[in-house]
Amino acid sequence: MILFREAIRKMEGYVPGEQPEEEGYIKLNTNENPYPPSPKIIKAICDFLATPLALSRYPHPLSEMVRVGAEKYYGVPREWIVVGNGSDELLNLIFRVFLGKGDRVAYPFPTYTLYRTLALLQEAEPWEIPFPGDFSLPEEFVRARVPLKILCNPNSPTGTYVSLEAIERLLRETSSPVVLDEAYVDFAPSNALSLLARFPHLLIVRTLSKSFSLAGLRIGFLFAHPEVVREILKAKDSYNVNVLSQIGAKAALEDMEYALRNIERIKETRLWFSRAMEELGFFVYPSCANFVMVKRGDMDLYFLYQELKKRKILVRYFPEWPDALRITIGTDEHMHILLEQVRDIIKESAHV
Amino acid sequence: MILFREAIRKMEGYVPGEQPEEEGYIKLNTNENPYPPSPKIIKAICDFLATPLALSRYPHPLSEMVRVGAEKYYGVPREWIVVGNGSDELLNLIFRVFLGKGDRVAYPFPTYTLYRTLALLQEAEPWEIPFPGDFSLPEEFVRARVPLKILCNPNSPTGTYVSLEAIERLLRETSSPVVLDEAYVDFAPSNALSLLARFPHLLIVRTLSKSFSLAGLRIGFLFAHPEVVREILKAKDSYNVNVLSQIGAKAALEDMEYALRNIERIKETRLWFSRAMEELGFFVYPSCANFVMVKRGDMDLYFLYQELKKRKILVRYFPEWPDALRITIGTDEHMHILLEQVRDIIKESAHV
Repeated sequence: MILFREAIRKMEGYVPGEQPEEEGYIKLNTNENPYPPSPKIIKAICDFLATPLALSRYPHPLSEMVRVGAEKYYGVPREWIVVGNGSDELLNLIFRVFLGKGDRVAYPFPTYTLYRTLALLQEAEPWEIPFPGDFSLPEEFVRARVPLKILCNPNSPTGTYVSLEAIERLLRETSSPVVLDEAYVDFAPSNALSLLARFPHLLIVRTLSKSFSLAGLRIGFLFAHPEVVREILKAKDSYNVNVLSQIGAKAALEDMEYALRNIERIKETRLWFSRAMEELGFFVYPSCANFVMVKRGDMDLYFLYQELKKRKILVRYFPEWPDALRITIGTDEHMHILLEQVRDIIKESAHV
Repeated sequence: MILFREAIRKMEGYVPGEQPEEEGYIKLNTNENPYPPSPKIIKAICDFLATPLALSRYPHPLSEMVRVGAEKYYGVPREWIVVGNGSDELLNLIFRVFLGKGDRVAYPFPTYTLYRTLALLQEAEPWEIPFPGDFSLPEEFVRARVPLKILCNPNSPTGTYVSLEAIERLLRETSSPVVLDEAYVDFAPSNALSLLARFPHLLIVRTLSKSFSLAGLRIGFLFAHPEVVREILKAKDSYNVNVLSQIGAKAALEDMEYALRNIERIKETRLWFSRAMEELGFFVYPSCANFVMVKRGDMDLYFLYQELKKRKILVRYFPEWPDALRITIGTDEHMHILLEQVRDIIKESAHV
């Protein structure tokens, strides 16, 4: 018999959204960007591959070329930046650096369920504080005295957004390190980067997966005080970001206009799609992300999820929140097809 | 003041070998392969990049296309395989899954110093058991009763190799999980894959970084009993291997002949280079890896390392082992240039 750590044996892993093997699905379940990334990224990677020994050498341990680009684009000094193998790696490292056995990590709930998994890996205690009905910051979260707080903003799976003013108040009223997971912030009206210099206990996590259409490359950023960066680097795998992702991320940051155009398109689609779903009788949470969460009290949403899947449309059903579905914003065409199918399913089930 | 975990605050991170910013160095310090990888790998990645949404989607969480290739090439069922973001990630996960605070992890020493870093991250206790003079398995290591044992074979930085018979005896005489870090095993006469089915407590870690010339892509394998695989997957980041590395690794495993030719070339170079260094008065450890460790009692090897660096040749000097240098096997041309410079430096220092 093989003996594992008790904490690992007892826990369940995080379950990511389905990636269908079969072709032909409209994928609205894992918040990917429906538009391809800038062609300049593809070109930069292919050009690099033509150089001799392109892949034979270890990549730069700090992804320096990406840090230089991020410094320029985000206006944060490179000593305040860690580049990660996706933002998941950075979240993992943060939990590892701040949390030991029995330590509490507080976060408003419902949110990204990975936080719970990462806490359990550290034998830390997840303290899940319910969001109030308006999805503003829970007072209990603001007042909590814990080794780590984390806020997903905009939040997943709800898409709701806590204002910059509320975050500033949170940072003033707590001395705990606060992680802002801003994976979806490029689809929101503002972000917290401007608070970084004033609050050394603020850590901001970003990703190129959603707004830059680069989920396949795995690039995340941590922006934090150099003292935090130093500790995170101790725990990071030396060569955590492969060289092609570094080349691609650098090119992405040099072609912001391209990403910004796609972000605008997604926000426009989100607006009309939300209205259309409301017209079909759904409650749509006000979203500042590239997805919307919808509810409809008189309908079995697991049934809807399954029916859509039969029709080759994937949306996200969370067994933990059976009364809601999360729908990624795709192209206008995708959303029209989805609406038509939803209309159809509603009509059919009314006939039963 | 920001409060980190005490264990992190106290530890130092692993320091990888130098990657010079400047061009023009002969790099013999981080055991990279001097030959480029198969052109079929480059072509596969470029072809893939031409498909729409190539980078927009999340990669397969289990790197299934790579597992399928590895199953075929290594003859290990895919349920026994985890694909990692380099073998470093897999070692990290193994330490995390087996070791809690105060647990001991045993390994013969000197070896890959990352093991110590990974142990300290878990607040586990590294138990460093000295190799005997002939670098065979220490009896104390065989007899140790600990939650985890690890053996780097061939060993770094020495290049020495423990026979398959000795490993089989180790596995028979211990019930502890045993990790064989076979990063360099493609340059050795045999490997331990054939023992896997008989010993469920055996974990084998491999990498495509050295023998496949793919250090830049970050691809590692864990071969282990499905029960181990299940626990490791709980701790793994969902999307740990980016899609381009998956495409590249798949192509690499389909063109083994190419890698095998380079492995043969490196073994030939290792042979004549070792003899030539002996002729220059060095003791050369018998190596089964793509590097050699050399000593010379009458010479300051830090001085030699520095002199070589001035002449744009990088070899590895470990402050922990100041009486030895580790030299990666490059092309024949690289090694001739190195020899010439070493000869020169010896001559010059004799004149002082």
